[in-house]
Amino acid sequence: MLPALLTSVALSLPIPLAPAAQEIAPEIEAYRERVERILGESVAAGRAYERLSELCRVAPHRLSGSPGFAAAAEWARQVMEADGLKNVRLEEVTVPRWVRGDVCELRFAAPAQLAGHSLSAIALGGSVGTPTTGVTAEIVEVKSFEELRSLGTSVAGKIVFYNRPFEPRRVDGFESYGGAVNQRTQGALEAAKQGAVAVVVRSMTHALDDVPHTGAMHYQSGVERIPACAVSTLGAERLAALLAAGEEVRLSLEQNCEWKEPVTAHNVVGEIVGSERPDEIVLVGGHLDAWDVGHGAHDDGSGCCHALETARLLKVLDLRPRRTVRVVLFTNEENGLAGGRTYRETHLDELPKHVMALESDSGGFTPRGFRSNANEETLAILREISTLLESAGSDTVTRGGGGADIGPMAVDGVVLVGFRPDGQRYFDYHHTEEDTIDKVHPRELNLGAGVIASMVYVVADLEQALPRNPVAGE
Amino acid sequence: MLPALLTSVALSLPIPLAPAAQEIAPEIEAYRERVERILGESVAAGRAYERLSELCRVAPHRLSGSPGFAAAAEWARQVMEADGLKNVRLEEVTVPRWVRGDVCELRFAAPAQLAGHSLSAIALGGSVGTPTTGVTAEIVEVKSFEELRSLGTSVAGKIVFYNRPFEPRRVDGFESYGGAVNQRTQGALEAAKQGAVAVVVRSMTHALDDVPHTGAMHYQSGVERIPACAVSTLGAERLAALLAAGEEVRLSLEQNCEWKEPVTAHNVVGEIVGSERPDEIVLVGGHLDAWDVGHGAHDDGSGCCHALETARLLKVLDLRPRRTVRVVLFTNEENGLAGGRTYRETHLDELPKHVMALESDSGGFTPRGFRSNANEETLAILREISTLLESAGSDTVTRGGGGADIGPMAVDGVVLVGFRPDGQRYFDYHHTEEDTIDKVHPRELNLGAGVIASMVYVVADLEQALPRNPVAGE
Repeated sequence: MLPALLTSVALSLPIPLAPAAQEIAPEIEAYRERVERILGESVAAGRAYERLSELCRVAPHRLSGSPGFAAAAEWARQVMEADGLKNVRLEEVTVPRWVRGDVCELRFAAPAQLAGHSLSAIALGGSVGTPTTGVTAEIVEVKSFEELRSLGTSVAGKIVFYNRPFEPRRVDGFESYGGAVNQRTQGALEAAKQGAVAVVVRSMTHALDDVPHTGAMHYQSGVERIPACAVSTLGAERLAALLAAGEEVRLSLEQNCEWKEPVTAHNVVGEIVGSERPDEIVLVGGHLDAWDVGHGAHDDGSGCCHALETARLLKVLDLRPRRTVRVVLFTNEENGLAGGRTYRETHLDELPKHVMALESDSGGFTPRGFRSNANEETLAILREISTLLESAGSDTVTRGGGGADIGPMAVDGVVLVGFRPDGQRYFDYHHTEEDTIDKVHPRELNLGAGVIASMVYVVADLEQALPRNPVAGE
Repeated sequence: MLPALLTSVALSLPIPLAPAAQEIAPEIEAYRERVERILGESVAAGRAYERLSELCRVAPHRLSGSPGFAAAAEWARQVMEADGLKNVRLEEVTVPRWVRGDVCELRFAAPAQLAGHSLSAIALGGSVGTPTTGVTAEIVEVKSFEELRSLGTSVAGKIVFYNRPFEPRRVDGFESYGGAVNQRTQGALEAAKQGAVAVVVRSMTHALDDVPHTGAMHYQSGVERIPACAVSTLGAERLAALLAAGEEVRLSLEQNCEWKEPVTAHNVVGEIVGSERPDEIVLVGGHLDAWDVGHGAHDDGSGCCHALETARLLKVLDLRPRRTVRVVLFTNEENGLAGGRTYRETHLDELPKHVMALESDSGGFTPRGFRSNANEETLAILREISTLLESAGSDTVTRGGGGADIGPMAVDGVVLVGFRPDGQRYFDYHHTEEDTIDKVHPRELNLGAGVIASMVYVVADLEQALPRNPVAGE
């Protein structure tokens, strides 16, 4: 029965507005005991770490479109079935397919005394290969696109060396990454516009070491596709020192990565069906694909296991919320976002009933809180819920993006939430051979799952649904 | 000039009361730019990690009273001199001296099929040795002193095996430690009262591994001093499983640790002399002694390097506060607290001018905030200051103890503050061979120093001193 005062305008909203945060504070407070049970279970008997170990063993290399990804998807499906989720399924996604090949050599051609010496490098994800004889040219160091443009066509025929480091005084590694990563994503495109023949990009990390970091880069139709690789930060420092000493530095790059035809991969989906409002959905997810170096333990095996563990914890504690909790492990986050886009397209009619979409894609370290794109009213409610997470040190909800895979749903008014773990170590391992299970701490990962499960459970169970974000035109 | 309204009562207070936190909020806000400079410097060019590496190399084993401690003290003195601190000195402290010896063997004597097999064990700090033939007896498992007492004199002639684990559902490791550690500190004493001949204590950790954890234990005059060791958690589980299966388990313990005569060690002290109120002191410290296993990298080399780095950051940034910042690296925290007690006794007349004493002794992980014993008014000011530390994720100030070394000054009304880093990994390494430099992350340690330096600087520079805690009788 609808109260008489509801107008037709209110009825046209897919989900009724929630009262302000202070009004539902007592309702939220009533979840404290259940949240403490979830948190306690997560550290005492959590299985996120055990699952992550298994994933890293079963499908260590799982770039979307690879056989390894198919193994990961089947593994995830079996885990969901074993945990008793409902509506477990693989949803088809057409994904681009890029293969690294087995050669990436970056060597000095000059100065003469270094000729033949190699630098620690890795092809950027999505780069074209070089001719088998490689590309050999003088390098020109730049720190920004502005500097590049000021050089005009003098870079023609040369290799552009992007060497803007992470801003060293920033505390937040993700901000540092954001401030440097356009060199990797757009560097080849911008350099090609000025006639460069290849680019070498300083690795995206604070760390000064010899580990190169891969990651996505993009071309643009109509602009020459030139090969791109990352060099380790130590290698970048070495190149910069030689140039600063007035040396002419020539490098030779050879790599045999290449694009293949698109193939079918899958988002893996399973649900705890809501007890009262099964059509209303709280999505929790991560991305199951990972770069083909290391084992994607932090990026984003951790997020996948957080999401799987969220459902398992609720099942094992017999906490079935009013709304449906949908676990979605996306494909192709690293090189295309086809998983996230396809999810949105496939589920467009359901999106008005997506109360929240939460993604974990910032690693498996100690939980600190969440980021959200929510409007003020909803943000206040999320903050009220986060007070239940004080004992886990995860009671901070800041403004920010939710996650790459759920990002496409922002235009539909879906409240997006991103899990925020401690980030000081993340860029030591991100997109490298070092991203392996030994870099993940069992208690940290399991507690993170407990924190996410708590947020998901409360949002999925609250009497009133979270207010959605405004949608253009609504 | 004193305002006329100050009464003689107010004049009798050593330090005037500060206005309430909201009144000085604008003054605190004015420090934001300086705090950001401190934090930025700490991550961009911090030297805490470099110093800690050096300490772990120069004086890896530095139990108070050992030659290694003397090396550590001289190293710290030289670092303070090199950093340009004033009034650098070693203050004498008489410390008890305990030496581990080179034997700690815990072996099965029964069941027969296990006879001679060893368990991973370590003498507890302060334990007496055994006869060279060892102590061999049946073990009796208990989980609490209540259970022990219920057994009466039936434990006479036996080895008491304390096996109460860390409460698995607790998120905070320090709380778990607090809930289990009396088995280690008091276990031998309580068991001896009932005639036991030795004790074996489950290691103080969440981790299930084969690494035994040492730590302090105490005797009491008039009660037999029986030997005590810790067994690894895996060893404890194995013993418990055998007992649960109905086996009679007999163990043989041999260890040659012993007490020697007390010797002289030192607290190491240096200062940045305040520009306006040099007699008012903000103390920042850690303890320079460490257990003689591992290298004390987290416990408490990290705290010492936090304190040294606090002073270095202020010097290098040319931030000389109104009050004196005094760095104190205490001796003998691990087995006696003579350093902290002697500091209090030696500086008793100065304590009314100690505006704050801050200790870092919870490891070198990512900073989260602080704990303090301060009264509500002062706590509110500390919380206001901590809002400047939001960007470092360290804006939480909770009620709690400051630290063992500064603890004796609580009765003098000194506001005690404890640095609170992330704690999920701490008890993996605490008091073990694993507490080495590779367990410390450079950015985490350096950022912690930045956070501590910020708090210390603002408190040392505020126009009005922090209100002190009430003192009995004042």
